[in-house]
Amino acid sequence: MFGKILENVRKLHPVVHSITNYVTANDCANMLLACGASPIMADDEEEVQEITSLCGALNLNIGTLNKRTVPAMLAAGRTAGELGRPVVLDPVGAGASLLRTNTAIKLMKELAPTVIRGNMSEIKTLALGTADTRGVDAAVCDRVAEKNLEEAVCFVREFASKNGCVAAVTGEIDIITDGGGTYCVFNGHPMMGAVTGTGCQLSALTAAFLAANREEPLAAAAAAVCAMGICGEIAYARLGEADGNASYRNYIIDAMYRLKPADFERYARIERL
Amino acid sequence: MFGKILENVRKLHPVVHSITNYVTANDCANMLLACGASPIMADDEEEVQEITSLCGALNLNIGTLNKRTVPAMLAAGRTAGELGRPVVLDPVGAGASLLRTNTAIKLMKELAPTVIRGNMSEIKTLALGTADTRGVDAAVCDRVAEKNLEEAVCFVREFASKNGCVAAVTGEIDIITDGGGTYCVFNGHPMMGAVTGTGCQLSALTAAFLAANREEPLAAAAAAVCAMGICGEIAYARLGEADGNASYRNYIIDAMYRLKPADFERYARIERL
Amino acid sequence: MFGKILENVRKLHPVVHSITNYVTANDCANMLLACGASPIMADDEEEVQEITSLCGALNLNIGTLNKRTVPAMLAAGRTAGELGRPVVLDPVGAGASLLRTNTAIKLMKELAPTVIRGNMSEIKTLALGTADTRGVDAAVCDRVAEKNLEEAVCFVREFASKNGCVAAVTGEIDIITDGGGTYCVFNGHPMMGAVTGTGCQLSALTAAFLAANREEPLAAAAAAVCAMGICGEIAYARLGEADGNASYRNYIIDAMYRLKPADFERYARIERL
Repeated sequence: MFGKILENVRKLHPVVHSITNYVTANDCANMLLACGASPIMADDEEEVQEITSLCGALNLNIGTLNKRTVPAMLAAGRTAGELGRPVVLDPVGAGASLLRTNTAIKLMKELAPTVIRGNMSEIKTLALGTADTRGVDAAVCDRVAEKNLEEAVCFVREFASKNGCVAAVTGEIDIITDGGGTYCVFNGHPMMGAVTGTGCQLSALTAAFLAANREEPLAAAAAAVCAMGICGEIAYARLGEADGNASYRNYIIDAMYRLKPADFERYARIERL
Repeated sequence: MFGKILENVRKLHPVVHSITNYVTANDCANMLLACGASPIMADDEEEVQEITSLCGALNLNIGTLNKRTVPAMLAAGRTAGELGRPVVLDPVGAGASLLRTNTAIKLMKELAPTVIRGNMSEIKTLALGTADTRGVDAAVCDRVAEKNLEEAVCFVREFASKNGCVAAVTGEIDIITDGGGTYCVFNGHPMMGAVTGTGCQLSALTAAFLAANREEPLAAAAAAVCAMGICGEIAYARLGEADGNASYRNYIIDAMYRLKPADFERYARIERL
Repeated sequence: MFGKILENVRKLHPVVHSITNYVTANDCANMLLACGASPIMADDEEEVQEITSLCGALNLNIGTLNKRTVPAMLAAGRTAGELGRPVVLDPVGAGASLLRTNTAIKLMKELAPTVIRGNMSEIKTLALGTADTRGVDAAVCDRVAEKNLEEAVCFVREFASKNGCVAAVTGEIDIITDGGGTYCVFNGHPMMGAVTGTGCQLSALTAAFLAANREEPLAAAAAAVCAMGICGEIAYARLGEADGNASYRNYIIDAMYRLKPADFERYARIERL
């Protein structure tokens, strides 16, 4: 089924509007192109509504939010809502500052995103209004592993139900749920944490997958998470002894460019609860 | 002749001031270094005039335009005009929003750029005040190929004449003309469309080529387009079976770094009308 | 000793807050991850104090400074000062515009950075209030080589003493001094100048090294400079015949990811005066 979801992206070439940070914007654009989508970045309040209306999905990322871009995110998000286009919210670093926490919560409440994609610390911040966020990475105490998986799934399900969204919480094990149906994804590699913006890239990818698979946001989000994890594994297997995180960054995007629908059958390690 | 033009860039090391988008700024800077030029990016209105006056050319790109940077583009462009320095305008996504269309037209009218470099949809927008722009890529109906080449050349020539500039319209076949002399460039590879910012990189490159070849803007622009296309071909030939668009991005810039004046003789596929 | 300094970075995983330019932000983030640190970029005045207070060091880079980010740099810097956290200032292009010169001097005077890292043209600008800056690269007359090393060391020592900082002036030979103790570093490769942002990356790296080695800022800064130079050499040795500056960029970061404390013994070419 995930194969079919990727196939749709390759066939429909959705355009994705991203209002995102300047640190990883280039990688997000190349990741979108790698999966078969087309990127457009535009963040001036005066044009975002028009741009969003041309696009199949909207990707909002607060990585380097500022007073100029937050209103643009809200305006773009409202347009997407009116037109019924999927919206992804990536609450980068929520919990690290009041501005981030409040902005992320405001975007969540006002825009009712289709998918919220973050690490456990960020999602906890959105759920509880507080969290132990250490910069932009999940806090150690927020890591999801086998031992606390059940508890984590409960928490994320409740979060998704309460907010009427698909929540995609990524970490050692990824949890994707709309409150009812739940996927756990075991793909990926720890070295992905040594590449800046793999989370941002995944959020952009998720927007593309949603745009091309409007009827099934949960499966589309899970397929995006799974695809990213698989690419992390393929790229890791390709590393030579002199390669480090910069080459790994390129290899992950390369792997997405080469990913075939049939690869899900071979590589996907998922559990449907 | 194109060989000599590249040689001049390598010899004179022009500094190019770019006011450009945050998505592809890094690749533009590395592309400038690859060809032998030196990049400087500065977009605050308070300093752009000084920065432009230090530089051999100015490259304006509206990829992520905003209210803060548009006045800076105008101020920098006026300084370049007063000092007689070449200006390149890249009207990224013109037609996708009123802000983009109006800004691109304003920059064109007020600054009289030496070269306008865009895809056919963007140039049509500038010419007609409207176009079918799908995000930042050319619309299917705007693709230039053998079958509509003559018609496209006529259109671009008229555009260049009317605006007193060199127009460089890139696509499957590239058309570079000052209204009279016209080059068609057949170099390049379709996979370049899967790398974000190859157009932006080409605009930056064009500015460098202009700066080092002040007396012949048409040939300089054509040489830049041709060089970019050749690098796209060399880079494509280098792709391994695991490589995708991220490695391709690097290989294109690498190819420019390695490009020798004599390579034009070997690889250039151009037609002078 | 430098080996121990790197070991501390790998052990403590300091989070570094960078307020930096959008041209090289991605490479800076990946370089921080490569050395074992964790990056966070945030530049809105409303949140920078909170973000800085979560971090082990602050890295300020004026590469694409603007009216919005300069007050944020000042606010973040004051917070770092109050909390006793190390601050690195990278005065990119100081001397190229009044805005840059005045901003760099203001940041230096008001924040008393732990380390100021720049090329000789930039440091001269800070010292003398004027310099011959050609874009963001050091002017030819400001190059430090064997023949003028003694004179350059004197100048940098005086600069460091007067400003109560460690000055790290990088070029063909790098000089790192707190006015008393002085390191000259002979590592590095000229091709590093063909990669945009190697200086920015070094400044970010320096902040990470300082954060994990609070008691010895001079040695930490010298170790960062030396590490960067070694990585430039390792990466250069890895270049294939088709590789250019884009692959070189990746290989430098890769080399940092792979760098082992013991590599300093093998590769470091330093002189302690």
